[in-house]
Amino acid sequence: MTFKLLTVTLNPAIDINYPIKNFEVNTVQRASEDYKSAGGKGINVARVANELGLSVTCTGIIGGKFGEWLTNNLDETNIKHDFTVSPASTRLCIAINSEGSQTEILESGALQPEEIQTRFLDHFNTIVSNYDLITISGSLPKGFPENYYVKLLEIAHKQGIPVCLDTSGKVLNYTVTHSTHCPPLLIKPNDEEINEITSTDNLDLANQLLDERLAHIPYILLSLGKNGALLRYKDEVYNIDIPKIIAVNPVGSGDSSLAGFSYGLSQSNSFDKAAKFAMAAGISNALEARTGHVDLDNFKKFSNQIIIEKVAKTS
Amino acid sequence: MTFKLLTVTLNPAIDINYPIKNFEVNTVQRASEDYKSAGGKGINVARVANELGLSVTCTGIIGGKFGEWLTNNLDETNIKHDFTVSPASTRLCIAINSEGSQTEILESGALQPEEIQTRFLDHFNTIVSNYDLITISGSLPKGFPENYYVKLLEIAHKQGIPVCLDTSGKVLNYTVTHSTHCPPLLIKPNDEEINEITSTDNLDLANQLLDERLAHIPYILLSLGKNGALLRYKDEVYNIDIPKIIAVNPVGSGDSSLAGFSYGLSQSNSFDKAAKFAMAAGISNALEARTGHVDLDNFKKFSNQIIIEKVAKTS
Repeated sequence: MTFKLLTVTLNPAIDINYPIKNFEVNTVQRASEDYKSAGGKGINVARVANELGLSVTCTGIIGGKFGEWLTNNLDETNIKHDFTVSPASTRLCIAINSEGSQTEILESGALQPEEIQTRFLDHFNTIVSNYDLITISGSLPKGFPENYYVKLLEIAHKQGIPVCLDTSGKVLNYTVTHSTHCPPLLIKPNDEEINEITSTDNLDLANQLLDERLAHIPYILLSLGKNGALLRYKDEVYNIDIPKIIAVNPVGSGDSSLAGFSYGLSQSNSFDKAAKFAMAAGISNALEARTGHVDLDNFKKFSNQIIIEKVAKTS
Repeated sequence: MTFKLLTVTLNPAIDINYPIKNFEVNTVQRASEDYKSAGGKGINVARVANELGLSVTCTGIIGGKFGEWLTNNLDETNIKHDFTVSPASTRLCIAINSEGSQTEILESGALQPEEIQTRFLDHFNTIVSNYDLITISGSLPKGFPENYYVKLLEIAHKQGIPVCLDTSGKVLNYTVTHSTHCPPLLIKPNDEEINEITSTDNLDLANQLLDERLAHIPYILLSLGKNGALLRYKDEVYNIDIPKIIAVNPVGSGDSSLAGFSYGLSQSNSFDKAAKFAMAAGISNALEARTGHVDLDNFKKFSNQIIIEKVAKTS
């Protein structure tokens, strides 16, 4: 049976990149080139998972002609999709690259009508059992309540489908503390978010990860950037050492690591394989100019260079 | 009979405006607001002509989902359109407004397939006789030959429909010097372009306008910004004095003046009426934050405050 991955992006975007020489404020710039692609964290996950050979489908909410542009772009790259269509338009995210600087203008996205919240829940409920694993990535659209990801977790949990959740800030904190009855399989917090959830910062990070308020979540992957990561798996914490690289564009490495993790789970149930593939995909992406793209040779090479070492355990 | 105006925009755009506080290079900016509208010089003409009560239709070339977005936007503002649809996508033009600065990123637009050149000529040939006046505005799409506007002028001339041409640089120079057999009714050069066409800069502007190389064109409108304009009509040159205003956003004032001129022609064949309405529409637009928009009360008021005075005549 093929392993099937569903990536959820509730607030996707058209990513637009303009390479411009000597970009300055208060000038008129002619952009002779532009690169446009379907964007948003879960779509990056899907793109890399697709490259790694998983059968992947994107879902979430799109709207208007920009939404149609986005699904056309996914079609062109042979990525399956199954979005809920809203009357609210899909947003644009613009990046201007100039002599080493990157200037970004990120639209927040349109306010979603309340009815779309319910329509997407129904849609998710209908399709979730067709998949072996779900990833949920990014922020909630304007107008969506804080508990929306908990609702998605409840639906997936009821149907026995594991969910990797990659969100941040208040929504992550809320979802972690309100999901003991429907735990995500994995979260990807940063150190500040761990501090907020555990309300402690007097313990080292490894021991904070063992806090009981996080105990219902099997995998916690905490990136330390070029220093690798900490992984809490069940009641143990591991340090993950990665090979040194010179990053070209680290944007999307977190999304790529989620794709690598999904690939690992599709291959075996061994936690260290999932961790290794996660890290290998993250580093491979950082070596590419394109966001959400890995070179398969790099991915294979790095998979064998990841060192996992236990550093803490629940006492 | 209703007076019918056709505005031609071969290279239209979606205009996007982001108001952003403290916009700086190399930062990530969240755009909480954005304003998107159908754009391009001929579309500004159409918008203002529509506000002045003319029956107006936009034509030109659009493509892809962004092109569909553009025509949807025209539908929302009740502006008729009749575009040729190309496989090449419609472009975006982005303006970032921040504390008095305006940073613009203008996509050049996709390369148009050669077949689209012919398709638009055929389309123009089919529809042109349905209109009383044509305006052609802006630059040629990538891949179009320098003589393309001459071809449009030939088609319109053969069917007896007058054309106002608002383009610039080399294409203007080429079109003016190659259209003695199919002259435009009006051009809107700047002083440098006049210099180039007449190959003189030792005469004052008024006398340059009387150069025989421009003699086939009945109306030449040369904007002097806040100092009004010079108008050459047939063998006489007029100075046009305008009331003093404090401009809010002068972008689109040239397009608005073309709409005003068209409105003038629709009302009477008197050249000074057309000139007055042209100037009144231009100033009214400069008082608005929105590009390609006039307040009708301002327009009426200013129409009575324009002073036209003869300054030169062919000897």
